[in-house]
Amino acid sequence: MTAFGFTLLSTDGMGRRGRIETAHGSIETPAFMPVGTAATVKAMMPESVAATGAEILLGNTYHLMLRPGAERIGKLGGLHRFMGWDKPILTDSGGFQVMSLAQLRKMDEDGVTFRSHVDGSAHRLTPERSMEIQNLLDADITMAFDECTPFPAEHDVAAASMRLSMRWAQRSRDAFVPREGYGLFGIVQGSVYPDLRAESAARLTEIGFDGYAVGGLAVGEGQQAMFETLDYTTPLLPKTKPRYLMGVGKPMDIVGAVTRGIDMFDCVMPTRSGRTAQAFTHRGTLNLRNARHAEDPRPMDEQCDCPACTRFSRAYIHHLIRCEEIMGAMLLTWHNLRFYQMLMARLRAAIEAGTLAQTAAQIETELGRGDVAAL
Amino acid sequence: MTAFGFTLLSTDGMGRRGRIETAHGSIETPAFMPVGTAATVKAMMPESVAATGAEILLGNTYHLMLRPGAERIGKLGGLHRFMGWDKPILTDSGGFQVMSLAQLRKMDEDGVTFRSHVDGSAHRLTPERSMEIQNLLDADITMAFDECTPFPAEHDVAAASMRLSMRWAQRSRDAFVPREGYGLFGIVQGSVYPDLRAESAARLTEIGFDGYAVGGLAVGEGQQAMFETLDYTTPLLPKTKPRYLMGVGKPMDIVGAVTRGIDMFDCVMPTRSGRTAQAFTHRGTLNLRNARHAEDPRPMDEQCDCPACTRFSRAYIHHLIRCEEIMGAMLLTWHNLRFYQMLMARLRAAIEAGTLAQTAAQIETELGRGDVAAL
Repeated sequence: MTAFGFTLLSTDGMGRRGRIETAHGSIETPAFMPVGTAATVKAMMPESVAATGAEILLGNTYHLMLRPGAERIGKLGGLHRFMGWDKPILTDSGGFQVMSLAQLRKMDEDGVTFRSHVDGSAHRLTPERSMEIQNLLDADITMAFDECTPFPAEHDVAAASMRLSMRWAQRSRDAFVPREGYGLFGIVQGSVYPDLRAESAARLTEIGFDGYAVGGLAVGEGQQAMFETLDYTTPLLPKTKPRYLMGVGKPMDIVGAVTRGIDMFDCVMPTRSGRTAQAFTHRGTLNLRNARHAEDPRPMDEQCDCPACTRFSRAYIHHLIRCEEIMGAMLLTWHNLRFYQMLMARLRAAIEAGTLAQTAAQIETELGRGDVAAL
Repeated sequence: MTAFGFTLLSTDGMGRRGRIETAHGSIETPAFMPVGTAATVKAMMPESVAATGAEILLGNTYHLMLRPGAERIGKLGGLHRFMGWDKPILTDSGGFQVMSLAQLRKMDEDGVTFRSHVDGSAHRLTPERSMEIQNLLDADITMAFDECTPFPAEHDVAAASMRLSMRWAQRSRDAFVPREGYGLFGIVQGSVYPDLRAESAARLTEIGFDGYAVGGLAVGEGQQAMFETLDYTTPLLPKTKPRYLMGVGKPMDIVGAVTRGIDMFDCVMPTRSGRTAQAFTHRGTLNLRNARHAEDPRPMDEQCDCPACTRFSRAYIHHLIRCEEIMGAMLLTWHNLRFYQMLMARLRAAIEAGTLAQTAAQIETELGRGDVAAL
């Protein structure tokens, strides 16, 4: 069994090229993690997810504790075995989705009581229970239980929320059962306030984690505020540990965050867009529902090597979407995930080559065109 | 280019083991054709369909003429290229689905005028137009345009309907453009009346086709009436040409029809069941929605080698279905198609070994148990 660890292979400005080692294999960073909410990356076979280049998935504690239940997955051998994915898995703590999805939430110092959005059943999450669930799921990377501070939040509200998260971070650390090859990440909160982010980062590094996430972003603050927050937050994080920007994002969000020293990302955008007819391409986005694609024999993206682009036309994918065929979601999801992985590979290569700034500018030029259906 | 042809390799009673050669490859018979209604076998990548053992697909002229349109598919290089399937394709004539799906049908001697069930647009199908469409689709096997006689039908109604289909069969033959490796099949009608089936078979063999389908069955007459109809119909068909029982069926329908000399089948049952939580197994059917599967670590079918059975538990597939995940439909469809192909392979081997009767009885014993979720 490999010890959990992070190796910084090279840097370019703030950009970092690294490698995370886990019990289920290694991850080249900067890395994008497809989201497998309910123990499946929607519309994708696990080997297809791997074929896109993904080396780690994200699983959602909130969804999995409700269906099929953490103890049940534990009994069935853990999440890897349950969903047929033998590479690393990161699970979130459940905190964010309790806030965004659950009903009748009641938060206290100890944790959160809520009702399931699926069937109204009552549940409770605490730092200790979140650690227990993530352990049952057999997550390679466990996230500390926190409160995702709503945006916008006044300074005093953000401070109180962050400090609660820091107390929960300590309890998460205490409750986490260390195992060879498994890691625990803390989450920096503090909204858009530099002093609170600094306090949070200091407290977390004092506790000591195997990686550090930046939380509470991509919640409506906008790209500029997100980048500014990263500008003053990432320098506060230990250079020797991976840094994860939670829930981000659009391709240019990722590019900007990589140039600011982030190593890991997750987002539903490529998969969700794949089910709503949007394709990311090297020339911008395409809405495949648009009638202009109906007779277009070209691939969605000439520069893409995925099955959707090498074997099918825009006309075919348009047809599938119009007929509401599952195959439409399958092909678009595959393509979008491959696009995201190609983006990450390009960023990794640019850091190695010392050309990150130029590559970032080049990507911005390519993608800045919006919907390029007319091209 | 291979000439279209059928080789009878061996027989066992009425059962036949054969091989069909087409422009896009050969088909071992008895064969089951998955249905790819709208240019996709629902929830399956084409290579996954091939991996189940399928050597030929069925495409629906009615659906494809409405969306995306036959001329459009023709312009894009034909149905094989459009949907990424390079093996043989059989298309139906559109006649059956005009009767079962279209609105405001008006039939006359020349053909049928109807409105699309999708958008109400007006369309017309005649034998000549059906041949033109199937040619645009580039079908390896084209079906003559016919009227599927409703069931039940009085003798005089069935006779008039059958004779119209025979006049349309002649017009289909006349309009079909012969190409090396491409074949045209006639369709025997006549409901459950031996004299009408005999008249139809005689007329079709007089016209001369590359294969003969038995139509107008699996429309509510029941298995016994279907088998009786086959008992007196298949002996009337040329031994040197393939025989296709349209729209059939359940596993035991197929077994019974193979013992009665049928070579080809198509049915939506394995794919549709795959989207409604039903699995066919070597011990009977399973409803994966049932809560009893929630913690069951066993595969759906111990004797199946498909990805759903070798890599996932009943508990996982149950979970996917409860969460309405696309992956549930993907795995169940894959399994059911593989089950059907394993069934066909077993029947082919039994004919070769001269043990068809025993194998058919054995399969009936295995499958006759209904829902075996408790096993």
